[in-house]
Amino acid sequence: MQFNTLDDIRGFCRDLPAGDEASAEAAAQRQQSLTKPPGSLGRLEELAIWLAGWQGREMPRLDRITIAVFAGNHGIAERGVSAYPSEVTAQMVANFAAGGAAINQIARLAGAELRVEPIELNRPTRDFTTGPAMDTADFLVALDTGWRAVPEAADLLVVGEMGIANTTVAATLCAALMGGRGVRWAGRGTGVDDAGLVRKRTTIDAALKFHRGLLDDPLGVAAALGGRELAAIAGAVLAARARRIPVLLDGFVATAAVLPLARLAPDILAHCRAGHASAELGHRELLRELDLAPLLDLDMRLGEASGAAVAILLLRAALACHGGMATFAEAGVSGAD
Amino acid sequence: MQFNTLDDIRGFCRDLPAGDEASAEAAAQRQQSLTKPPGSLGRLEELAIWLAGWQGREMPRLDRITIAVFAGNHGIAERGVSAYPSEVTAQMVANFAAGGAAINQIARLAGAELRVEPIELNRPTRDFTTGPAMDTADFLVALDTGWRAVPEAADLLVVGEMGIANTTVAATLCAALMGGRGVRWAGRGTGVDDAGLVRKRTTIDAALKFHRGLLDDPLGVAAALGGRELAAIAGAVLAARARRIPVLLDGFVATAAVLPLARLAPDILAHCRAGHASAELGHRELLRELDLAPLLDLDMRLGEASGAAVAILLLRAALACHGGMATFAEAGVSGAD
Repeated sequence: MQFNTLDDIRGFCRDLPAGDEASAEAAAQRQQSLTKPPGSLGRLEELAIWLAGWQGREMPRLDRITIAVFAGNHGIAERGVSAYPSEVTAQMVANFAAGGAAINQIARLAGAELRVEPIELNRPTRDFTTGPAMDTADFLVALDTGWRAVPEAADLLVVGEMGIANTTVAATLCAALMGGRGVRWAGRGTGVDDAGLVRKRTTIDAALKFHRGLLDDPLGVAAALGGRELAAIAGAVLAARARRIPVLLDGFVATAAVLPLARLAPDILAHCRAGHASAELGHRELLRELDLAPLLDLDMRLGEASGAAVAILLLRAALACHGGMATFAEAGVSGAD
Repeated sequence: MQFNTLDDIRGFCRDLPAGDEASAEAAAQRQQSLTKPPGSLGRLEELAIWLAGWQGREMPRLDRITIAVFAGNHGIAERGVSAYPSEVTAQMVANFAAGGAAINQIARLAGAELRVEPIELNRPTRDFTTGPAMDTADFLVALDTGWRAVPEAADLLVVGEMGIANTTVAATLCAALMGGRGVRWAGRGTGVDDAGLVRKRTTIDAALKFHRGLLDDPLGVAAALGGRELAAIAGAVLAARARRIPVLLDGFVATAAVLPLARLAPDILAHCRAGHASAELGHRELLRELDLAPLLDLDMRLGEASGAAVAILLLRAALACHGGMATFAEAGVSGAD
């Protein structure tokens, strides 16, 4: 295991690997020379420069993209917080394996390898309104699953999740670490009805009350109020940082999964971009808190890395321009006055 | 010529071809059956249904995509409203032909054919602060260039432009047809300095004053205060409607080009979607006026169809899911409670 204790994680976060400023600067210089008004490709320019910095090359590539989707089950699902039964988590994992889910189609289109990691689906986390969802050992194992899912070398990592009831988990993490109660953070998730929404809020409020003593300990919160797939996402994001692999985060759950890390080290998400803004209540506020500007805003709320996987296409557009465009000198185009 | 008089255009707009509701409904039904919570793919679902309706098939395709970029020059360029000299229009057309521009890279990535139509670059429109930019005959010829650039059959048309000084033209059209003066509509364009921005505002205000008698005639405004590449875009959008080809509009200039049509017939843009929201001042307000919700918001402001061409990738994601996903029945996944 990469991290044997929570203190190991805290230690990693105190001395984070940095990107390569020289490569980023070279990419920025190249952008200035291309046949377009400076800055006119907007975020496509920023994305090329960001990829250059983390890949450590002026001309970044997207030949090896891994989409990691982690799946987990949750004790609180028994409280009726989702429109779907817990069995759907495993059924969707089977659907991923068979190639029938949205993420299969988008991954193929985007030229990315899909890796699905179901984590102890037959052993849901504990109902966190009456105890910790995971003890520290369980949390570290799940985190390690995420760490190990990341290749030693890759051009991009995309992280997402599947887990019935996990928007309630994500909302609880946000409430615990950002303040507010269930009414502020509970959204419709997969499409829960009004009664289900009330149950989500009640569940969150009960969890906050039960665990009120540990809310100033981000990793304690991640274990007691989190989920295995969320812990794995955090582990994958840490592994990517160690290997300087840029990351696209998916929606509300994937972003909430890294909130505890951001509470430990504000710079922890420098190698990450938000793939999209989810339609789920709370995601925009969470993105603002983390200073992440989403690349897409398409009213998606599916999870399974689908929004971030669509955003891979924008990275490809950014690199197509960065690598393929002529410079003013090459094209014989006059510069600005 | 398709339209020999302005009244021919008005007549076309009175009896617009409609999409195929049965195909759109079949696509909507299919979306409901796929392995995801209903609506959770957000705008990707809406896009698939929109394409189905205009292509007249439940399973739409994107095998034949034409990106049409129209180029024109403008008398008002002499007034110092751009950061670049007018020669850049022809230089960029040469850059398109050589494959060195942003749109070349994005078109290749998106699997689209690029068609560039320079329109009388050696004969700029008249300075419209002292006369009409085009007389009716010139306007109809430019419009016809756009009409003829559209294939008889295609799965998608993307329209964009190149023309030094044409954000001033677009801003003038908006001011003329939506109200307000130069200060409301003049943006930085390719990156004009403060003095240039003042010249843009002054130019717009002078044009509004000179032409104040015709501001209630949308086609009169399109001729007198427009440009050849904008007229061609309007013609291409009309041809696409006649052939039921769905359209992606590029940024501020391309959207302003169809504003006169929308003043003639509010439904004229039903077959169009806005590819992106440009960073150029005025585009968001114009999009709201036309009830167009942009697909992307990446701070781009390059023109040459670049933003809309990136949005093709989103249509491909939409169709990959629409055509490739398993249904709940096929995958053996439980539905919602």
